[in-house]
Amino acid sequence: MRLSRYFLPVLKEAPAEAEIISHKLMLRAGMIQQLSAGIYNWLPLGFAVLQKVEQIVRQEMNAAGAIEIMMPTVQPADLWRESGRYEAYGKEMLRIKDRHERDMLYGPTNEENVTDIFRRHVKSYRQLPLNLYHIQWKFRDEIRPRFGVMRGREFLMKDGYSFDVDHAAARRAYDNMFVAYLRTFKRMGLTAIPMQAETGPIGGNMSHEFQILAQTGESAVYYDAAFEQIDFSAPDLDPERLKALYAAADDKHDPAACPISGDRLRSGRGIEVGHIFHFGTKYSQAMGATVMAADGSEVAVEMGSYGIGVSRLVGALIEAFHDEKGIVWPESVAPFKVGLVNLRPDDAATTALAEDLYARLHALGVEVLMDDRDERAGVKFATMELIGLPWQVVVGPRGAAEDKVELKSRATGEKHDISAVMLVERFAL
Amino acid sequence: MRLSRYFLPVLKEAPAEAEIISHKLMLRAGMIQQLSAGIYNWLPLGFAVLQKVEQIVRQEMNAAGAIEIMMPTVQPADLWRESGRYEAYGKEMLRIKDRHERDMLYGPTNEENVTDIFRRHVKSYRQLPLNLYHIQWKFRDEIRPRFGVMRGREFLMKDGYSFDVDHAAARRAYDNMFVAYLRTFKRMGLTAIPMQAETGPIGGNMSHEFQILAQTGESAVYYDAAFEQIDFSAPDLDPERLKALYAAADDKHDPAACPISGDRLRSGRGIEVGHIFHFGTKYSQAMGATVMAADGSEVAVEMGSYGIGVSRLVGALIEAFHDEKGIVWPESVAPFKVGLVNLRPDDAATTALAEDLYARLHALGVEVLMDDRDERAGVKFATMELIGLPWQVVVGPRGAAEDKVELKSRATGEKHDISAVMLVERFAL
Repeated sequence: MRLSRYFLPVLKEAPAEAEIISHKLMLRAGMIQQLSAGIYNWLPLGFAVLQKVEQIVRQEMNAAGAIEIMMPTVQPADLWRESGRYEAYGKEMLRIKDRHERDMLYGPTNEENVTDIFRRHVKSYRQLPLNLYHIQWKFRDEIRPRFGVMRGREFLMKDGYSFDVDHAAARRAYDNMFVAYLRTFKRMGLTAIPMQAETGPIGGNMSHEFQILAQTGESAVYYDAAFEQIDFSAPDLDPERLKALYAAADDKHDPAACPISGDRLRSGRGIEVGHIFHFGTKYSQAMGATVMAADGSEVAVEMGSYGIGVSRLVGALIEAFHDEKGIVWPESVAPFKVGLVNLRPDDAATTALAEDLYARLHALGVEVLMDDRDERAGVKFATMELIGLPWQVVVGPRGAAEDKVELKSRATGEKHDISAVMLVERFAL
Repeated sequence: MRLSRYFLPVLKEAPAEAEIISHKLMLRAGMIQQLSAGIYNWLPLGFAVLQKVEQIVRQEMNAAGAIEIMMPTVQPADLWRESGRYEAYGKEMLRIKDRHERDMLYGPTNEENVTDIFRRHVKSYRQLPLNLYHIQWKFRDEIRPRFGVMRGREFLMKDGYSFDVDHAAARRAYDNMFVAYLRTFKRMGLTAIPMQAETGPIGGNMSHEFQILAQTGESAVYYDAAFEQIDFSAPDLDPERLKALYAAADDKHDPAACPISGDRLRSGRGIEVGHIFHFGTKYSQAMGATVMAADGSEVAVEMGSYGIGVSRLVGALIEAFHDEKGIVWPESVAPFKVGLVNLRPDDAATTALAEDLYARLHALGVEVLMDDRDERAGVKFATMELIGLPWQVVVGPRGAAEDKVELKSRATGEKHDISAVMLVERFAL
């Protein structure tokens, strides 16, 4: 992508209403624009990251055996009356009347709808286990939306739902998601700490929330140092062992009662990005979602639900990965892998080399944003630091004469001169 | 994907409320399930097709230089008061009050929001041309939703918006989309006929709608036979020549005045799947979206908008591609490329060959749905015909003894025996 043809409205200063660093940087980097309180437009750079995060979540859910569907945003109130949540949900639920005066709502979550899908089609334990998920916009009418996409009203969430014939199978489904979540966050470069949690309005009797570590995180967390040693990509991750490791947010952490101490007890700040629940038959009983068990009896299906805040993760990633100059994207979620800076678009040799590298990297499938604007070098460098692409390639007249460019890592700041040929080889790997 | 682990609730009979063939087949093939009038859940098979269609639209938009963003579904009414459409839109607009009693709405389209994005960030002709699009759910509260996803209330639409400094540039932007649309539909195997159209509530002075040909289409269309000869993938498609070709729906077609006749005049039935508009400064003037022109004057930006009914296309594709047994997907939008039928899961040799082929095709990146259910052969064949995957591979005990399978084309019905090795080679190409 050529920056001259892109839409990247960077700002020198963050608007005053932005309180936290991710909100400030998302506004400054032209990633989002507020449309209404807690409701955001995702501009091209922001949307590119959102898509990357969404795709990692999708791949890991599919790898874990979950099946993707798409449930609509607008739901009939009657389904929620069956579960008893229509009245109970309160003002966070956006209630709507359609032209025929029917009560509808904008889904804040989908337990009722997915249970309805299930009860219409699944009748036998033979069709289980089943895990259905979707990645869809939700609306929760927060009384005071704030912190940009971290606590918006309209937000993108992955919510999945498991169905099993008995408690033991439901536990396996829960553990499967528990491990998949840790893998998912790890692929984004994040260390996620799972901690036992309250079940809240979803209900149920077992729940974990996943907090990713970030210096600017919203709450203090305490955890076993072992979490930092685990290889989350290992095929044989043991959920029981992981669940047994100590982890607690500060409202639950009691230093006197904490089973670990010294070097083993780490503390940091966390941001909640996922939450999983086993709630048994709460919805299936209320809504008559039963299956025939192996012994011929009819049983209410055991369910769990599993949420990941996809749009929230974009903010959380910035809280975890930034410095004083801007964002520092991990490669897996970066909107582009390489920022190619043409220092002198008015110089023929410089532009020829920049264009050649742009074409060759593009041909390799490397995502490149080329700054071909007629701007001062300082503006271009500042833009690259702000938007945080992992690799910067700087092409100037002196290097161009020798077919050389400067390659810089955004994360470490290390830079070195490299021939154009070697540069292409490096990214071909 | 193994069918035993998939969620494919096929039905023997279509529910009585389904009036048209695509609605019947989508229900029977377990692609969708109605949640409320005109509001559908997309089940795994349906969602897989929706994703394929969406991805083709995205690729062609990107190739045409449009830039993807994401605008939210819920918008503040105030923006629509600026354009005058809040009162004018009527009951099709879903109006919402949030918890603070602010007037909001579920976007039926996004001219106002995108114009607001533009006016906040773009000040100079140097930043033009610009074409921003998104693929997002819309809501139009149809008084009588019908025909499944063909006329739903909540639907997925690609809507794009072009911004140019003057009329000539705006015409180029329009022509660019005109050609991109023809390419997009062609990639789905569809012949799209562009015809001049009324501008309706969007406003403006130039508009084309795109009707794809299907025997069961909603309206009669008349068009120049030349449309059937054009190579829409050619790099040098001439929009002026295409616009000059005769095409009209029956409400506009006057046989006495038609400039072509005989073999050159074709008739068929069409389904509208796209609509493009040039509306000049209608929104930019009302909302103060101006830029500095090259001569230093301040001018209202020239705009166009470009819609493709993404979810509607899934239904339209079925109207165009089906037979008495079910759906016949073109490869580019098929939910899986291959349906692998294990005729005898209880037979070790048959299952070994089926599993081996499944693993090898999977390793090649071929999307395979393997019917490994404990069902009669007739049920399996009927399911494959119904869901319409382009290629069926049938593995049975007799063939397995010789490492042979049957390969069948869903479109032509042709089948022949082929060795397992050759089969894998065929799909490796």
